[in-house]
Amino acid sequence: IQFANAEDKQEFSKYPTKAGRRSLSRSISQSSTDSYSSAASYTDSSDDETSPRDKAQVNTHGSSDFCVKNIKQAEFGRREIEIAEQDMSALISLRKRAQGEKPLAGAKIVGCTHITAQTAVLIETLVALGAQCRWTACNIYSTQNEVAAALAETGVPVFAWKGESEDDFWWCIDRCVNTEGWQANMILDDGGDLTHWVYKKYPSVFKKARGIVEESVTGVHRLYQLSKAGKLCVPAMNVNDSVTKQKFDNLYCCRESILDGLKRTTDIMFGGKQVVVCGYGEVGKGCCTALKALGAIVCITEIDPICALQACMDGFRVVKLSEVIRQMDVVITCTGNKNVVTREQLDRMKNGCIVCNMGHSNTEIDVVNFKQITPQIPNGFKKLLKHVLQHLVESEQKVYPYIQLILRLLSITTTTTNISDPALALIELFNAPEGRYKQDVYLLPKKMDEYVASLHLPNFDAHLTELTDEQAKYMGLNKNGPFKPNYYR
Amino acid sequence: IQFANAEDKQEFSKYPTKAGRRSLSRSISQSSTDSYSSAASYTDSSDDETSPRDKAQVNTHGSSDFCVKNIKQAEFGRREIEIAEQDMSALISLRKRAQGEKPLAGAKIVGCTHITAQTAVLIETLVALGAQCRWTACNIYSTQNEVAAALAETGVPVFAWKGESEDDFWWCIDRCVNTEGWQANMILDDGGDLTHWVYKKYPSVFKKARGIVEESVTGVHRLYQLSKAGKLCVPAMNVNDSVTKQKFDNLYCCRESILDGLKRTTDIMFGGKQVVVCGYGEVGKGCCTALKALGAIVCITEIDPICALQACMDGFRVVKLSEVIRQMDVVITCTGNKNVVTREQLDRMKNGCIVCNMGHSNTEIDVVNFKQITPQIPNGFKKLLKHVLQHLVESEQKVYPYIQLILRLLSITTTTTNISDPALALIELFNAPEGRYKQDVYLLPKKMDEYVASLHLPNFDAHLTELTDEQAKYMGLNKNGPFKPNYYR
Amino acid sequence: IQFANAEDKQEFSKYPTKAGRRSLSRSISQSSTDSYSSAASYTDSSDDETSPRDKAQVNTHGSSDFCVKNIKQAEFGRREIEIAEQDMSALISLRKRAQGEKPLAGAKIVGCTHITAQTAVLIETLVALGAQCRWTACNIYSTQNEVAAALAETGVPVFAWKGESEDDFWWCIDRCVNTEGWQANMILDDGGDLTHWVYKKYPSVFKKARGIVEESVTGVHRLYQLSKAGKLCVPAMNVNDSVTKQKFDNLYCCRESILDGLKRTTDIMFGGKQVVVCGYGEVGKGCCTALKALGAIVCITEIDPICALQACMDGFRVVKLSEVIRQMDVVITCTGNKNVVTREQLDRMKNGCIVCNMGHSNTEIDVVNFKQITPQIPNGFKKLLKHVLQHLVESEQKVYPYIQLILRLLSITTTTTNISDPALALIELFNAPEGRYKQDVYLLPKKMDEYVASLHLPNFDAHLTELTDEQAKYMGLNKNGPFKPNYYR
Amino acid sequence: IQFANAEDKQEFSKYPTKAGRRSLSRSISQSSTDSYSSAASYTDSSDDETSPRDKAQVNTHGSSDFCVKNIKQAEFGRREIEIAEQDMSALISLRKRAQGEKPLAGAKIVGCTHITAQTAVLIETLVALGAQCRWTACNIYSTQNEVAAALAETGVPVFAWKGESEDDFWWCIDRCVNTEGWQANMILDDGGDLTHWVYKKYPSVFKKARGIVEESVTGVHRLYQLSKAGKLCVPAMNVNDSVTKQKFDNLYCCRESILDGLKRTTDIMFGGKQVVVCGYGEVGKGCCTALKALGAIVCITEIDPICALQACMDGFRVVKLSEVIRQMDVVITCTGNKNVVTREQLDRMKNGCIVCNMGHSNTEIDVVNFKQITPQIPNGFKKLLKHVLQHLVESEQKVYPYIQLILRLLSITTTTTNISDPALALIELFNAPEGRYKQDVYLLPKKMDEYVASLHLPNFDAHLTELTDEQAKYMGLNKNGPFKPNYYR
Repeated sequence: IQFANAEDKQEFSKYPTKAGRRSLSRSISQSSTDSYSSAASYTDSSDDETSPRDKAQVNTHGSSDFCVKNIKQAEFGRREIEIAEQDMSALISLRKRAQGEKPLAGAKIVGCTHITAQTAVLIETLVALGAQCRWTACNIYSTQNEVAAALAETGVPVFAWKGESEDDFWWCIDRCVNTEGWQANMILDDGGDLTHWVYKKYPSVFKKARGIVEESVTGVHRLYQLSKAGKLCVPAMNVNDSVTKQKFDNLYCCRESILDGLKRTTDIMFGGKQVVVCGYGEVGKGCCTALKALGAIVCITEIDPICALQACMDGFRVVKLSEVIRQMDVVITCTGNKNVVTREQLDRMKNGCIVCNMGHSNTEIDVVNFKQITPQIPNGFKKLLKHVLQHLVESEQKVYPYIQLILRLLSITTTTTNISDPALALIELFNAPEGRYKQDVYLLPKKMDEYVASLHLPNFDAHLTELTDEQAKYMGLNKNGPFKPNYYR
Repeated sequence: IQFANAEDKQEFSKYPTKAGRRSLSRSISQSSTDSYSSAASYTDSSDDETSPRDKAQVNTHGSSDFCVKNIKQAEFGRREIEIAEQDMSALISLRKRAQGEKPLAGAKIVGCTHITAQTAVLIETLVALGAQCRWTACNIYSTQNEVAAALAETGVPVFAWKGESEDDFWWCIDRCVNTEGWQANMILDDGGDLTHWVYKKYPSVFKKARGIVEESVTGVHRLYQLSKAGKLCVPAMNVNDSVTKQKFDNLYCCRESILDGLKRTTDIMFGGKQVVVCGYGEVGKGCCTALKALGAIVCITEIDPICALQACMDGFRVVKLSEVIRQMDVVITCTGNKNVVTREQLDRMKNGCIVCNMGHSNTEIDVVNFKQITPQIPNGFKKLLKHVLQHLVESEQKVYPYIQLILRLLSITTTTTNISDPALALIELFNAPEGRYKQDVYLLPKKMDEYVASLHLPNFDAHLTELTDEQAKYMGLNKNGPFKPNYYR
Repeated sequence: IQFANAEDKQEFSKYPTKAGRRSLSRSISQSSTDSYSSAASYTDSSDDETSPRDKAQVNTHGSSDFCVKNIKQAEFGRREIEIAEQDMSALISLRKRAQGEKPLAGAKIVGCTHITAQTAVLIETLVALGAQCRWTACNIYSTQNEVAAALAETGVPVFAWKGESEDDFWWCIDRCVNTEGWQANMILDDGGDLTHWVYKKYPSVFKKARGIVEESVTGVHRLYQLSKAGKLCVPAMNVNDSVTKQKFDNLYCCRESILDGLKRTTDIMFGGKQVVVCGYGEVGKGCCTALKALGAIVCITEIDPICALQACMDGFRVVKLSEVIRQMDVVITCTGNKNVVTREQLDRMKNGCIVCNMGHSNTEIDVVNFKQITPQIPNGFKKLLKHVLQHLVESEQKVYPYIQLILRLLSITTTTTNISDPALALIELFNAPEGRYKQDVYLLPKKMDEYVASLHLPNFDAHLTELTDEQAKYMGLNKNGPFKPNYYR
Repeated sequence: IQFANAEDKQEFSKYPTKAGRRSLSRSISQSSTDSYSSAASYTDSSDDETSPRDKAQVNTHGSSDFCVKNIKQAEFGRREIEIAEQDMSALISLRKRAQGEKPLAGAKIVGCTHITAQTAVLIETLVALGAQCRWTACNIYSTQNEVAAALAETGVPVFAWKGESEDDFWWCIDRCVNTEGWQANMILDDGGDLTHWVYKKYPSVFKKARGIVEESVTGVHRLYQLSKAGKLCVPAMNVNDSVTKQKFDNLYCCRESILDGLKRTTDIMFGGKQVVVCGYGEVGKGCCTALKALGAIVCITEIDPICALQACMDGFRVVKLSEVIRQMDVVITCTGNKNVVTREQLDRMKNGCIVCNMGHSNTEIDVVNFKQITPQIPNGFKKLLKHVLQHLVESEQKVYPYIQLILRLLSITTTTTNISDPALALIELFNAPEGRYKQDVYLLPKKMDEYVASLHLPNFDAHLTELTDEQAKYMGLNKNGPFKPNYYR
């Protein structure tokens, strides 16, 4: 489980600066490009250096209501989207099931997310369900330029490119919201910047919106703050804390990504290695399961007695970091907190100890106190592979490979889960009868969560059992769900 | 997760009959006696046959305000309680921490639970914290007579013995509630019978109570019904759905008890066996983890897509029972539903296939449709071991060992968890400031759940990490918890 | 892997005494009776006290060439044998496949093993394959009297009962070997006592035998000694070290029996418990796999660097016992060595620490140095369940439950493996062409081991792939095996 | 377990051709360069094109008795060797322990192995222990040029470069053996080519050698053939089948490399995927353990009943490939056999099914029958990452990613194990008293295997227990080992 940080809170009340945001997770997501796009990414570097804002581009349908790196990459981007579709059967299946009804007819959605082949599939699904969309990037590094081009080519106004400046970032958001003759009635946001901008600059849009869907920890935190302050005048849906997100993205994906990320960066053999995992939430549980299975000797640090007791029952010693730090071969943080590994602890580690952050922000390890780390972290890091930033942290005599794994790096399946949730949240908010949702922040209804899960089952050749009438009556359940109370995880 | 059944609903509005209640889980709990008491249990059978109601007994302090089998067994019962205390460090630690403050001074608690060495430790803890208690048994079979004697000897009015008739059962409850010069202000119930009795017979007691704590699925269900009907005029706390209960009793304990129970009754070797587990809730997850670890080939049936997808990600095929039933060596039910295994499916099983219910009631397998099963289940079954009822279900040509494992059979730790929760719930309700709890059913507050967990940590030599001030501020948390939102599991 | 002890070596050269043998594993096997026989076992105690040697009994065919407790129990024993047959499909399948050929026609087998329902199935299989058999018990406690009666009733001369004196033991062996008009040409032994007796008393029988099959560590050790000394004048087959035995009996069965045994005796919950396992051979590996899976925190002691490194790679810390003993909740020995847990270490354990021997002999834990332990261990122990002996070891202030699990306790499948091996070894030795086996000790040929394994596969619905001609040629293998070199495990 | 192929047998009797050998595993090992050397590898391609045979090079000591790509890369290669030394504590520790005694003083070793930073550590250890060495590459692709340069610079005559022609290959071997005034008395070989050359061309060297150490399956197979034919006139040691090799390289390393390799090439998420693993030897066991732990649903194909039964007991269904091929998401071969996956089966797979060979040669999957596969496999493949070759196999409508993982890819630990064994084998053969080894093929003595394992234990902070005198006597063991019989695995 992750929490937003205190700095965010302050940030929300002032005009956000990119410098502040660099310390957030999003600022390192530039590496989260898809493997199939490596060719494109590489050729990007040899691209011309003109800012997209200074280019006059037009798509083959004559529209110039977009701003991307190079509209000519559209065809290549289309191929990538098609490949992504193959792995996103859940969303495609949703598209097919709902295409006739057009449940989003009339929806005008302004979106601010990573722009990748996967999100393109989401956007095009929203369009297929009847929505009009305008889109911008939630991160200055993560845009796949060719995908943005492909979207722009089909007529979705996209304002995003890889390597935006901070000024570009806000300019894109503004171009997305502020357009003549079109006013958004829904917001899909990842991080809260778009919401913030609309709230501050276009309060009339904000007030008239049918709903906000927010994907990130940070953005959700901001929404709860607005709600507490009585300033949230539209229903908002928190899709970050849905079960499918928490269990599938965090538990199951991290179970795989911790191995993948560490192998790619360090070639470590896990068998017999002593590992301490800081934090036994879903991410920590996923990491520990995998590491234990490969023969690592894992111990845990925790602040929460329930999670600590779970760790005990799962066979992990619960320790204090300072007491074990000297023996550890690998230190992994997944707390969402800051300075979980301190400078003093880094100094006491074995030479060559691997320090790895699996948390959502890069505050967990106090690397900034290392003299060799430049304040500009991305520059200090070396991009090794698409998912991983690695930095050799040198401290006098010792060298630690410091690894920043990006949490939600992994997978096709994950991504799909992650991406079906917002689509369903938008449909739910847009179609909810008057009064179902008030000016508050809601979790995705259990039934929606169940629906998202059901979309994935055919991939696994899984066959659900149906309740008989008699059983449904006995259980007091509707045969179509929801099957569990909302508090069940 | 388990649900109460429809029959219960009807039952609540009428005077409950033992016949009806025999189909509930409690009716088979007579075997949940502790291993140390086997000597006593055996000698019981050679006891005199006089009904305790007809005996005049007095304890060494001159009191006769109790009704137990034989007050002379008190010393033996005391030894058992002392042994139980050794394993219940969490509760003992709570007793020590709170003994000075006497947080239950003034509480007059009437209780209706199983009466075992473990619950005796609970009762004596309540007394140590200042409460006055009167106690009766929630089950006509499960009372450890010597423990009841030991409690009575120390002055706790106990009305319970092993082998009560239905009439005895309600007589005991009444004697417990209806006493001159003493009026209960709190209720601790396991199953809802006591609550029902007070509600029906002593509405004035009911209305003036400070709170009700309910431990069982069935009882909780009844309370929610009362609440819906607007008839619940006291705050009630559902300790059945606390995290410590759901995870520890269900997930972790069932992980062990499924192996233990099947081994004791069948001597089955698990390696290579084909097993289908019906239901992938906490109980199902626990069973599957254990069986997979011992080399069984496990598949799952589910009605809930989220649980089904979890099963997939955990490496289990999700199937329909009818399609696999022929190949299975073992069938385990843990759905809480009824007729999950039908007569027709029983007929299609391999000869010798083991059918095992891990659910909370014995409705999951349609055994009543077997001709050899008498309506009087306990008679039809053969008590093999303390935890297990086994019945050979014969159907024309085939023989299935049918096993009814009692869910919460296991362990010391479990029991403790299970037993610390009600104590804390009582303290919370009794001491809550006016207005914190209204006339509704509440979950145990997260902080209480965390506290219960923390009581167990010393047993595992687990060391919690404490938040620094800076970290607590960053996370927006109190350093003493609660550490997670209420919806986190 | 286990080794025989030095005392055995001395013992072999002198006339063995029962007193000496009491310290061996066999002396505690009296509890290895099958669960179905509990009725019989109980009624045994109320049996008449006349020694079987003093009774005149005759079976329904008029033969009196046997000596059992009570021939009238034959029918009950027959039922138990029939139940055992259901679980021993491998042996039954061997019986069916080979019944036509009568591969043991002409074999005169004298056997000395535990006499249980399972071994009865073995003996009757040998008879079905054409052999003549005479049988005695390798253990003075372990005979199931009703099974012995059932065998005697069908005409197998059996000389065995539960509770033989030492003198009885050797008398039975002698009666088995020394019979007019019949001379054994094969020996099946478990422990080496029969072999020793024949070697010493009937050297002419010894010299003319076609082969000896030995099942136990101790017996195998004795044979290797004879062979080294140049005194082994017949081929002998060591079925103790066959792959099916080592892997299936030790690794896989102990994986289950460690859980079963500890649960039954102590009701311990494994989750979170600190456990040290002494010895990481097959038995240790099996124990550790199971305990880890149930959430115990396991560490290992080892003397062998290869096994120690395997433990590391499997995720277990390798420690010295003295350094961890204070923290442990459970200590398990499976080394085959003596005094692995010393008196001094017992004294340093936590109160309530469970000490459990999974090794083949009861020398691993230095219990004899405890004052309260009588030299006569079986009396000092309390028989809890069929597989387990438990003793409360008291040392001034502390009480440790000391548990002696009998290694090969478990399972039907195991038993079958364990029992198919000797059958095949007898067939192989009896039918081997002149010169294949010399006067030496042999391992069961790989092909036989593979055959035993193949007999079990149908139970698991397992389908073997067959080599194509091309593949067999490519691999240089016969299509029917053996598929692995002899040194492959 | 792996077997040599029939073609090898024929090959041995004729002059081997590189064309034939290209289909063997060694021909794809060019990717097994270490990650740290990627810079070097990349710059290689821009190197000059002159053949090393045509260059006149001299090291800084004035010697020109070597032939490498570029002696000027020595310094870079030295850095790589130093990095490798850090991870090879076992070999360095051997070097330190034995440096005083110089156990190889007088040994003249000619070696033919992969030439990597790791083998350089081996060669320099042999030199440190007193040996004179001459070295060549066993593979035309795998040489790390800068490492070869570093060795040549320190005075080891090395004849090897990346990208040798077939003619170069034999020329290098010849230059290595045939040098004036120096005659090898020991051979270290990986694949048997050097041995073959010496046997054919320099029979007098062959006859006078003190011993041959062979690392590979193929080479070992050839040696057994020579031995059978009575033509092996020197003792040879098979280090391929040592326990440390079989368990550590195969079981434990493949447990990690299967995940790593598949992730890097396909980004597959394992949870819920249906996987069939062909072959349940050590490699298959390793793969299955890892895949099961990450939530894949794994089944097995096997020809050997023992391995099949192990699969059952480990919880895997044993199936025939043709019956499950349609449902599988991933097919993994690790049999050592050929055409385990046929063209017909490839055609029946799901679109996108991943086919992966973990076996030692690339014959397991019948890819050659696909039209798009060129006979020259390395060209047809795309080198993705250092460990993996991937090829998209297209068949009309479908595309399968076909992945060739190089078996022994992984790890530092592995490599060390793999590399300590030959060093110890050389020491053993060189120092063995007359008569200990005859003209035959031997396994590494158990004690040596134990010694290799012991060298690794400090890395894992593992503490061996030592036998007391009393225990050693009881067990009949030497306190320093060997602790297990030779047949123990």
